[in-house]
Amino acid sequence: MTRVFNFSPGPATLPESVLRQAADEMVDWHGSGMSVMEMSHRGKEFMAIHAETESNLRELMGIPASYKVLFMQGGAIGENAIVPMNLIGRTGMADYVNTGEWSKKSLKEAKNYGTVSIAASGEAGNFTAIPRQSEWKLQANASYVHICSNETIGGVEYHWTPETGAVPLVADMSSNILSRPVDVAKYGLIYAGAQKNMGPSGLTVVIVRDDLIGHALPITPSAFNYKTQADADSMYNTPPTYAIYIAGLVLKYVKERGGLPAMEEHNRAKAKVLYDYLDQSSFFSNPVAREDRSLMNVPFKLKDESLDDTFLKGAQDRGMIQLKGHRAVGGMRASIYNAMPIEGVRALVQYMKEFEAQHG
Amino acid sequence: MTRVFNFSPGPATLPESVLRQAADEMVDWHGSGMSVMEMSHRGKEFMAIHAETESNLRELMGIPASYKVLFMQGGAIGENAIVPMNLIGRTGMADYVNTGEWSKKSLKEAKNYGTVSIAASGEAGNFTAIPRQSEWKLQANASYVHICSNETIGGVEYHWTPETGAVPLVADMSSNILSRPVDVAKYGLIYAGAQKNMGPSGLTVVIVRDDLIGHALPITPSAFNYKTQADADSMYNTPPTYAIYIAGLVLKYVKERGGLPAMEEHNRAKAKVLYDYLDQSSFFSNPVAREDRSLMNVPFKLKDESLDDTFLKGAQDRGMIQLKGHRAVGGMRASIYNAMPIEGVRALVQYMKEFEAQHG
Repeated sequence: MTRVFNFSPGPATLPESVLRQAADEMVDWHGSGMSVMEMSHRGKEFMAIHAETESNLRELMGIPASYKVLFMQGGAIGENAIVPMNLIGRTGMADYVNTGEWSKKSLKEAKNYGTVSIAASGEAGNFTAIPRQSEWKLQANASYVHICSNETIGGVEYHWTPETGAVPLVADMSSNILSRPVDVAKYGLIYAGAQKNMGPSGLTVVIVRDDLIGHALPITPSAFNYKTQADADSMYNTPPTYAIYIAGLVLKYVKERGGLPAMEEHNRAKAKVLYDYLDQSSFFSNPVAREDRSLMNVPFKLKDESLDDTFLKGAQDRGMIQLKGHRAVGGMRASIYNAMPIEGVRALVQYMKEFEAQHG
Repeated sequence: MTRVFNFSPGPATLPESVLRQAADEMVDWHGSGMSVMEMSHRGKEFMAIHAETESNLRELMGIPASYKVLFMQGGAIGENAIVPMNLIGRTGMADYVNTGEWSKKSLKEAKNYGTVSIAASGEAGNFTAIPRQSEWKLQANASYVHICSNETIGGVEYHWTPETGAVPLVADMSSNILSRPVDVAKYGLIYAGAQKNMGPSGLTVVIVRDDLIGHALPITPSAFNYKTQADADSMYNTPPTYAIYIAGLVLKYVKERGGLPAMEEHNRAKAKVLYDYLDQSSFFSNPVAREDRSLMNVPFKLKDESLDDTFLKGAQDRGMIQLKGHRAVGGMRASIYNAMPIEGVRALVQYMKEFEAQHG
């Protein structure tokens, strides 16, 4: 068996050690005589897995006690509606910063539940940079300010934390959660689909400050109401138990490797290998402003796009898959989340060098 | 390793062969060099898994071509809101039949989106029988009539299909889907959380007739809008890929064992072993009307409830777990879904006999 280097934007590559442990424990978890998949979510075995997963997430991210951690369903796209359903009722309006495809999805969805104001937009620059905070037009009566901390498609990432004063900052961190330390206390709410840095798809993590819970619009489904779920310890409905278990294994893996500071170092080193090569190449290019480049998703283009398919085919032959860019931007994209080893990035750059030498 | 007999109401026991295959394929699915968990949902490998799963569900249930199969998230409790969000806007009102705890949850949730009328209720009889159709008060202008085809907590099940004329029949089939043949054409919509007869929690299957798609209220989140999801082949947001894969393995298992007619025969035989014993016992009792007894969930009580804990402890010592009844009804409950072997039910009855001999 040869494992591929999987550059998928999500669902994405997971640590091999996590997968091996999951395989070992599949039929009989810790002598319980059953798979985690078969456990009642209210049984003592799963309750322990659930509690340990939450506890490790709290420890890794330094989540203050005044925040709830909710394990939910529906992904970030579901949460794009669930966040305003729960939060926008406080004042009826919210500020959104538009930095690309994922921001656009979020703000479009929010308009169904209140008034949405675009505080800043990178659209004029084709979303190749994050608008500086000095350009943001924030409204004091907003229920919250929404950002996407890393645009998976465009490859721009916040390397600074916006200041929003008394207005809670809400971040879709789907594609960079756990990739580096974050000061959670600067946010009112953080949400993330698990399927990039945390585990399988089908699990959404919501980290929400206590005072923001309890303001849901009457049309909010109980399963997606933060108060209902917080009161029931995320078990108002049956949670996605197996996905929580895998996320738990991933969190332990991250802890064992030194936590989020170590992840950041690892991710910076990987991204540097790829960006350094892109910056000196006359054949490959990345359009993003240097200070806003994502450490997780690196879009790049070939000078001659008629060679795109040849490039992808050659990558596939070398065991490197899912390098095709999103249709919204074209070209290529390498997603290099926590679980991508630096060897994968080096192999990609080596291949790019050879390709450039042959076709450049 | 000894596998337990797991009588959990859900998440529930799964076929051991499915778990073994999942373990074998965990690190490298079919030579792809990756786990199913790591696959892009838009890659050819997962697209094939997804298509095969849908195709097998269609074949097993005989789903007509005029119905869409959607793989969604949020469970039946999520769907309790999502159904009215999508359907009640057609006329603004809906009929609900109240047969117990799960019906009550459904109708309470629906009230947020339109006018709900109780067509019939088993409450006066403490939900020990399904109200006969002759007692139902249906309204011609209802958007739909909602039933829960099997009450997981109370243990009552429809063994007949209601006639609702031109008004679409909607059924929460979470706890009896795939347990026996169903004439899908008699329903407008069927929904089910996967975690009883189909796979892991975190996956919700919705089977919906084409003409019922496209009537969603404006406040319906895109991720939960049947039209958005139907148009995107359930991939408007990232689906719960691993849960879909496991459901696919379960469906193949059901097919190999003779499909839904064979499941029904198997389930009837299991339920008979347990009900026959209960009916002749003077120590254990089941309160449900014989013609409405569930083949999936069998609640029962001890004559002396002070012995409940002793009974549960003894069962646990014999490798039989999760027999405690739901707090809403007390006593015991044996959930005996497709994957529970008849040996499990026989072992339970043998233990009950011994317990009765000792304490009766």
